[in-house]
Amino acid sequence: MLKTIGVIGGNVCSKEIADIAFKVGERIAKNGAILVCGGLGGVMKAAAKGAKSAGGTTIGILPTQTKKDANPYIDIPIVTGMSIARNVIVVRSSDAVIAIDGRYGTLSEIAIALNLGIPVIGLKTWDIKAPIKIAKTPEQAVELAINYST
Amino acid sequence: MLKTIGVIGGNVCSKEIADIAFKVGERIAKNGAILVCGGLGGVMKAAAKGAKSAGGTTIGILPTQTKKDANPYIDIPIVTGMSIARNVIVVRSSDAVIAIDGRYGTLSEIAIALNLGIPVIGLKTWDIKAPIKIAKTPEQAVELAINYST
Amino acid sequence: MLKTIGVIGGNVCSKEIADIAFKVGERIAKNGAILVCGGLGGVMKAAAKGAKSAGGTTIGILPTQTKKDANPYIDIPIVTGMSIARNVIVVRSSDAVIAIDGRYGTLSEIAIALNLGIPVIGLKTWDIKAPIKIAKTPEQAVELAINYST
Amino acid sequence: MLKTIGVIGGNVCSKEIADIAFKVGERIAKNGAILVCGGLGGVMKAAAKGAKSAGGTTIGILPTQTKKDANPYIDIPIVTGMSIARNVIVVRSSDAVIAIDGRYGTLSEIAIALNLGIPVIGLKTWDIKAPIKIAKTPEQAVELAINYST
Repeated sequence: MLKTIGVIGGNVCSKEIADIAFKVGERIAKNGAILVCGGLGGVMKAAAKGAKSAGGTTIGILPTQTKKDANPYIDIPIVTGMSIARNVIVVRSSDAVIAIDGRYGTLSEIAIALNLGIPVIGLKTWDIKAPIKIAKTPEQAVELAINYST
Repeated sequence: MLKTIGVIGGNVCSKEIADIAFKVGERIAKNGAILVCGGLGGVMKAAAKGAKSAGGTTIGILPTQTKKDANPYIDIPIVTGMSIARNVIVVRSSDAVIAIDGRYGTLSEIAIALNLGIPVIGLKTWDIKAPIKIAKTPEQAVELAINYST
Repeated sequence: MLKTIGVIGGNVCSKEIADIAFKVGERIAKNGAILVCGGLGGVMKAAAKGAKSAGGTTIGILPTQTKKDANPYIDIPIVTGMSIARNVIVVRSSDAVIAIDGRYGTLSEIAIALNLGIPVIGLKTWDIKAPIKIAKTPEQAVELAINYST
Repeated sequence: MLKTIGVIGGNVCSKEIADIAFKVGERIAKNGAILVCGGLGGVMKAAAKGAKSAGGTTIGILPTQTKKDANPYIDIPIVTGMSIARNVIVVRSSDAVIAIDGRYGTLSEIAIALNLGIPVIGLKTWDIKAPIKIAKTPEQAVELAINYST
């Protein structure tokens, strides 16, 4: 079974953050892992685009009721219709998660991962008192995610 | 985006039903569609094995809290930790579902699909007053699923 | 802890069915049990109205994202935002369920209850091959629900 | 419809925190609001005990599959069987939430509330960069929750 690395972050993001997310996605694919994300825009879209650019496989776990809401770089949409409760499934389906930027939705995913004992790698994201492994670059983030994944 | 065909049925089944499920999975793969199932044993395992025998891709949407519970023919485990509520996600993530044999869990998935307007193909399964398309063979079931998928 | 009796049925129903649901809700309250339902219209609304007419307590487990969607006879709205997956919670939170009329959503709840071993009482509802206890009147339905509740 | 105030916090807590949670629950009941919590031990149990001591009503939204897991001060157990995804329902069903102490599960609930625009009152809990209203005492926490509730 292939490793699955989750990428979590906002549905809207700056160009700079999108570039970082793209590189993270690309690197996940080059490492032979599957990218798991929430399937929508912003960080999720950029990471999925990066993974596809490197020939990877992308899974988008959607909060909405139709796969039409998936961004165009998602290979496999999982349709939950469960709104923000889908965040739990994004996290649980990942062997490690990389948090990039993000606001409260991302913070909820970080907290769920910490609660469940799933490794969290942080890249320009929330600074909280918790065992998040801080990465300086996309390359380092993916390396940490691969090495610490459960 | 590839078509996704769900296969729903019991976690335990007879040899005869397993053979049918295997053929359904095989046929889904040969049609270039992705197999979605609940990821556990019985019909789910036989269908996933069939899909893999034909080089297909298999998704298992698990009710439990770890991907270790997936049967060995699942490529991509989706871990929900939501118990029977994962049935909703199996159905929503499928463009059509093929119900094979099965008991109450399968009936719940048939009913959810009918409620959501997702086509249901029946193969030796529940006989209820509803617009289920009845198939006589695995080949016919997959053909109906592909043709009627949303 | 008080007994909880679930009433499941469609979001739209005839006057005749609403009268039956009202009497079921009234009877649940008179038996000192709490009414659990999906919180919306039709059978759910009529049953909640009946329970309130007899001084009972009503819980509405909503599929939507705001308690404003609850019918006016709901004392305690539980807001899931999980769409049809809330059906699982309606069933699990009930010591027994009474199915009145209904279509595929109701059938999914009947099937989930049967799967989980929660007693199902049927009143002018789905006729399927399953251990549903058939009631002829609202009074009998509630009596069976109270007696067989887990 | 009565106001619902959620109390979120750990399943295990110190005597000092339990005393605070008890007073918060008591105060919620004295204000005529319903207490919503996760139904288990620690902060949840102490808050529910406090609410019952003042004649209030308590709702416990359980992650597990049986109402037997509810603490003895829960009037109405809602059984989700959805593990940590029940945190979403605790938050959504509250007009405001009071976070007391807590670790990652509590942080996930704080983040979900912030994401959904539900007011969060903090009492000896996570210190993060977010619009959490900080209370110094149980009395102040409940006053803020009542005043800011949606």
